[in-house]
Amino acid sequence: MNSAPLGIFDSGVGGLTVVRAVQELLPAENLLYLGDTARLPYGSKSPETIRNFADEDVRFLISKGVKAIVVACNTATAHALPSLHEKYRIPILGVIEPGVEAALANPNAQRIGIIATRGTVGSHAYQHALALRRTGLIIHAVATPLLVPFIEENWIDHPATRLVLKTYLDPLVEKGIDTLMLACTHYPLLIPVLREILPAEVSLVDSATTCAEHLKKELTRLKMLATDEGQGDLELHLTDLSEEFESLARQFLKKSPGRIYRAVLGV
Amino acid sequence: MNSAPLGIFDSGVGGLTVVRAVQELLPAENLLYLGDTARLPYGSKSPETIRNFADEDVRFLISKGVKAIVVACNTATAHALPSLHEKYRIPILGVIEPGVEAALANPNAQRIGIIATRGTVGSHAYQHALALRRTGLIIHAVATPLLVPFIEENWIDHPATRLVLKTYLDPLVEKGIDTLMLACTHYPLLIPVLREILPAEVSLVDSATTCAEHLKKELTRLKMLATDEGQGDLELHLTDLSEEFESLARQFLKKSPGRIYRAVLGV
Repeated sequence: MNSAPLGIFDSGVGGLTVVRAVQELLPAENLLYLGDTARLPYGSKSPETIRNFADEDVRFLISKGVKAIVVACNTATAHALPSLHEKYRIPILGVIEPGVEAALANPNAQRIGIIATRGTVGSHAYQHALALRRTGLIIHAVATPLLVPFIEENWIDHPATRLVLKTYLDPLVEKGIDTLMLACTHYPLLIPVLREILPAEVSLVDSATTCAEHLKKELTRLKMLATDEGQGDLELHLTDLSEEFESLARQFLKKSPGRIYRAVLGV
Repeated sequence: MNSAPLGIFDSGVGGLTVVRAVQELLPAENLLYLGDTARLPYGSKSPETIRNFADEDVRFLISKGVKAIVVACNTATAHALPSLHEKYRIPILGVIEPGVEAALANPNAQRIGIIATRGTVGSHAYQHALALRRTGLIIHAVATPLLVPFIEENWIDHPATRLVLKTYLDPLVEKGIDTLMLACTHYPLLIPVLREILPAEVSLVDSATTCAEHLKKELTRLKMLATDEGQGDLELHLTDLSEEFESLARQFLKKSPGRIYRAVLGV
């Protein structure tokens, strides 16, 4: 049992979808969120740069006394999680393994589509994790870099968003996918429109809810669940503050983010 | 006369449209370009963060011995140019004044549309510079944050890009603009599609060619033009290297960027 906060980080505010899912499943946990808004996005940058950024993010959270860390960013999980595991002893969980486990919980899943940033697709982390667990899977991973900008503009219902989604997804549907992995923590906000566009038989697996469930299991196993009964706190730290990021944080959390602190990394 | 290189910087590779224009107009100049690809974009970030980043960019270029600096980024010009002028004695030119001068070179320009990042629009730098020079102008500035992602994806001819452009521009056309300022160094790549969408009587003013012309005047006035007769060199430095950025650099320069160096700032 451990009432220290859980650290959760992402390149920006997309990881707040994970925060929401964790708050629903583990309401007593205190959460300390770091969004590296000064240097977002990570999804288009090189593996080495992403590893350097993720390392600074983890060091910041450790300096705040967190008991465990969730990498609430698929690109950072894909490129940095192995090196973070080598370097730090604190439990660090990513979003990829939980998503892969959830996708393969369906014994009939056979044709898996993956949509993600270019960085995540290029890392082959999902493809590798899937292939390790089930032989004979047919995997189609597509980089969909225009989705985050549309989500951040809150143009989710705009016809252009549907046109972009159809351009990305039609080839996957033609290939007969039975599962679509939303391999970016921004994408849960697209679920309603994806449900309209995709055939009903395609299962959607998102990073937020699957990560929260995995976290609950891990904290239970490590005997690190929060001891208090009450509602935990959420403290937001961003490396760049602006009205824009505040309003995005509200959109992702579906409630006021409260006071936001400015984080200074690498000091 | 001075054969030291000219320093040109941008948040990423968009400023290469300025490089192309400078190479055409001042072929003998040696150019040293810095793109802060590790922290791009600047357009959505706060004024304070943009000023810190621009300051580090300028210090890097000065450490390389440049004779003058062009801020080939509208957002950085809008938020950081005044503080850079206060702090440094080296000539530093932005992209806003040249664009404004060019727009108002037409004595009939009266209804000015501006499209730019959220940072540039929010700075009111264009609106202020225009209003200082001509009374009675009607100015409509619109933040168009989805354009850079589409340009960087090279989806310029995609129907979704046209739909996004029409969503942004139709209200400006309805307001009867006679001039549209493309207040982002990425946007010159949109000129062909803009010409199709906009009424023929709307003049387009871009940051790249107007900045190159202004630079030529300033270097002449300061007696700092390159002395050599031959073709100048171009040296590219990026804070994050990836295949993606190399291919974007090629797209913006319309030729091979040659060897690209990795820049480390703030040391």
